[in-house]
Amino acid sequence: MSKQQIGVVGMAVMGKNLALNIESRGYSVSIFNRTGARTEEVVAEHPDKKLVPTYTVEEFVDSLEKPRRIMLMVQAGDATDKTIQSLLPHLDKGDVLIDGGNTFFQDTIRRNEELANSGINFIGTGVSGGEEGALKGPSIMPGGQKEAYDLVAPIFEKIAAVAEDGEPCVTYIGPNGAGHYVKMAHNGIEYGDMQLIAESYDILTKLLGLSVEECADIFTEWNKGELDSYLIEITSDILTRKDEETGKPIVDVILDAAGNKGTGKWTSQSALDLGVPLPLITESVFARYISAMKDERVEASKIIPAPAAPAFTGDKAEFVEKVREALYFSKIMSYAQGFAQLRIASEEYGWDLQYGEIAKIFREGCIIRAKFLQKITDAYDRQADLKNLLLDEYFNEITQKYQQAVRDVVSIAIQAGVPVPTFSSAISYYDSYRSADLPANIIQAQRDYFGAHTYERKDKPGIFHYDWYTEA
Amino acid sequence: MSKQQIGVVGMAVMGKNLALNIESRGYSVSIFNRTGARTEEVVAEHPDKKLVPTYTVEEFVDSLEKPRRIMLMVQAGDATDKTIQSLLPHLDKGDVLIDGGNTFFQDTIRRNEELANSGINFIGTGVSGGEEGALKGPSIMPGGQKEAYDLVAPIFEKIAAVAEDGEPCVTYIGPNGAGHYVKMAHNGIEYGDMQLIAESYDILTKLLGLSVEECADIFTEWNKGELDSYLIEITSDILTRKDEETGKPIVDVILDAAGNKGTGKWTSQSALDLGVPLPLITESVFARYISAMKDERVEASKIIPAPAAPAFTGDKAEFVEKVREALYFSKIMSYAQGFAQLRIASEEYGWDLQYGEIAKIFREGCIIRAKFLQKITDAYDRQADLKNLLLDEYFNEITQKYQQAVRDVVSIAIQAGVPVPTFSSAISYYDSYRSADLPANIIQAQRDYFGAHTYERKDKPGIFHYDWYTEA
Repeated sequence: MSKQQIGVVGMAVMGKNLALNIESRGYSVSIFNRTGARTEEVVAEHPDKKLVPTYTVEEFVDSLEKPRRIMLMVQAGDATDKTIQSLLPHLDKGDVLIDGGNTFFQDTIRRNEELANSGINFIGTGVSGGEEGALKGPSIMPGGQKEAYDLVAPIFEKIAAVAEDGEPCVTYIGPNGAGHYVKMAHNGIEYGDMQLIAESYDILTKLLGLSVEECADIFTEWNKGELDSYLIEITSDILTRKDEETGKPIVDVILDAAGNKGTGKWTSQSALDLGVPLPLITESVFARYISAMKDERVEASKIIPAPAAPAFTGDKAEFVEKVREALYFSKIMSYAQGFAQLRIASEEYGWDLQYGEIAKIFREGCIIRAKFLQKITDAYDRQADLKNLLLDEYFNEITQKYQQAVRDVVSIAIQAGVPVPTFSSAISYYDSYRSADLPANIIQAQRDYFGAHTYERKDKPGIFHYDWYTEA
Repeated sequence: MSKQQIGVVGMAVMGKNLALNIESRGYSVSIFNRTGARTEEVVAEHPDKKLVPTYTVEEFVDSLEKPRRIMLMVQAGDATDKTIQSLLPHLDKGDVLIDGGNTFFQDTIRRNEELANSGINFIGTGVSGGEEGALKGPSIMPGGQKEAYDLVAPIFEKIAAVAEDGEPCVTYIGPNGAGHYVKMAHNGIEYGDMQLIAESYDILTKLLGLSVEECADIFTEWNKGELDSYLIEITSDILTRKDEETGKPIVDVILDAAGNKGTGKWTSQSALDLGVPLPLITESVFARYISAMKDERVEASKIIPAPAAPAFTGDKAEFVEKVREALYFSKIMSYAQGFAQLRIASEEYGWDLQYGEIAKIFREGCIIRAKFLQKITDAYDRQADLKNLLLDEYFNEITQKYQQAVRDVVSIAIQAGVPVPTFSSAISYYDSYRSADLPANIIQAQRDYFGAHTYERKDKPGIFHYDWYTEA
């Protein structure tokens, strides 16, 4: 029997779709699932596809040409470790395991090191695009041994999404956990984008009193310009959809309690560890947490009234344009923070990340895909070691142009009692970042006062302590 | 030779001061330090004190009455583990080790469990108040075996700070890591308080153009009212101090790059793990991070101008009062978030925390000590299982009264380009918390659209998925 070119373990929807995607590009694919019944089901569902079912680990491993390429599409965490352990005795040196789950990057660093000791190559790869993306073309972010990635690259380049210029949305990210880190950061950015859209919608409906239908038109319009992106596009689609049962817009029926799978939280926790300011994404994680406290909020709303703000009397169309500018401005702040985080992570973990290449593979396939990402690639093309997007000419110019809109939208929203945690965080970041002087001198004085933590001076180098306990 | 009542390991300034404090209350104290020279130095510095120096672990342990009470005042982390390992062979069942360092609560949970297996009791205790507090009376937050705490309680009650009503600022917090968790949360709150003061100062100086001297008077005045607290008090003192060398106010000389020791970061990371919104403290951690990027900010300031905002023309005294109200309002938001975090942590780890008692021991000794903490105790006296301070009558009333001030201060600061990350975060939290409806329905719709993550409905229970891929 001839050997297959790649194997996929885990036939839940993401694994199945990825296997179908690979098969559709002309590769022969072995599939395996912990429970054989599921494997049978997948094969039965797709009689026209040349998926080769296997029912034991031995049979699965034996069905693959060497060096073996095995893609794990199982649950992140323990299930991944168990799957690796079950495969390991049957593998040969030089085989390549590829973890395509939403794995915590530190786990990938650990597994890469452990498996390297057994001569097994380990690629941890982000796969973004949801079920649809897995099937038709995801954005792929592989990290691990470069020579191992080269064995997988031809397949990944064929199954990945394709950008407007014809380039596949996959690139080698870096050693060990780099790919999963970038996927995590992608997801953090996704949290920020989604919260910014939610706040924009809140302002349009609560502050301007626009209907769901009017909002749908606005998002459709926005999607034609600078904001052109998958999330804006699906938002405009979502706003046109009706609930079959009640005939209401579906968004008016959906409970406002956001769930999360933890990748946003990881992104914030990593930023906190690295000493990188990541306020916008973090506010978006906390906004989901507050949203989930639905019962408590309803209770609070009964005893805490909204502020007595006057109704909006200005030009609505003009204000809608300000909201658009505020959204684009805030999105830039979020990406500036996220890419700064990648830079510090790259230094910390020795990954040599290529930021422009990363932005490139985000252009299609993944959830945050957007025209705007080309601007980020352009910025890194202009200056590879750019410290912060705000220091790039394009982003500097556009944020200067739009900053007044954010100030206006945030002030008016705050006066009206519409919560804008990420919009307001965006302008605070901007104003902090462009401030030569911040009031942290007060904090340093306090720390030196109560804890003798010392301080530096503005006028000369050195470490100083003030004798606070001598009376002035 | 008679045995001593307690031993202190680690003669850095905190350990030394704590030993002196204990001795001053009439207890006999053995002291030990890794390097004997330091022990000799401490004894030589304080010839009038009855500190008993010891120079080997055996001698130290042997000098103590049983069950032994040993306070570890060494660096958190590895040093603590090493010290415990060196003591362990010499201890007897029933002895009590007390870790008074700034230890991560998960380490305390682990050590408490490991040592319990050897029959050794382990107390992890927060000690707040800096060097001065350790010497004259800190706030103490002990966690661990209750029966072990009872052996230490008489000493702790004598060395602790004393509140206005005569009560010592120490209480049993709960099992294993509870004490260190509460200390961590205390420090997180401290970060928030300090950043709020820094932003207030920034507004007074940059927006109103007040001098350092005028600010000193304002903080002195503020310290007489609702804001009466240690941090406001030292801020007013700090603002009167001059740099000897230049004659300038010392704050104008101190570099605006804030350091941190990690406890604020831990607090935010824990909130992220627990699913608790803690935006204000987290913004204050990120504000320190941005402040530390001094060179990058100076660079950015050269190419990103401040907004062309008109000069402030209103009544300055009136606006100063608004800043005061905004500061008090925001402080309440921070404590509401911090105490909500304690509640969820208590449930998660099974600690049965007594929030009113915790507020009580914060009233004196520690860095966040303030009259205002009595209001928190009062709130929990009214309702022990209060979900959020904002649902209490006092906090509800005062925040309603002051919310307009925050809206005004934040709007004007944002228009003027003065960064107000924590002030704006405070009002966002308030408006989110009191909103029966948030725009998270948009987020849930998006998640269901691209990831089939499902959603709940507002009108009936259940889990639903919309068929987005059928054309509308």
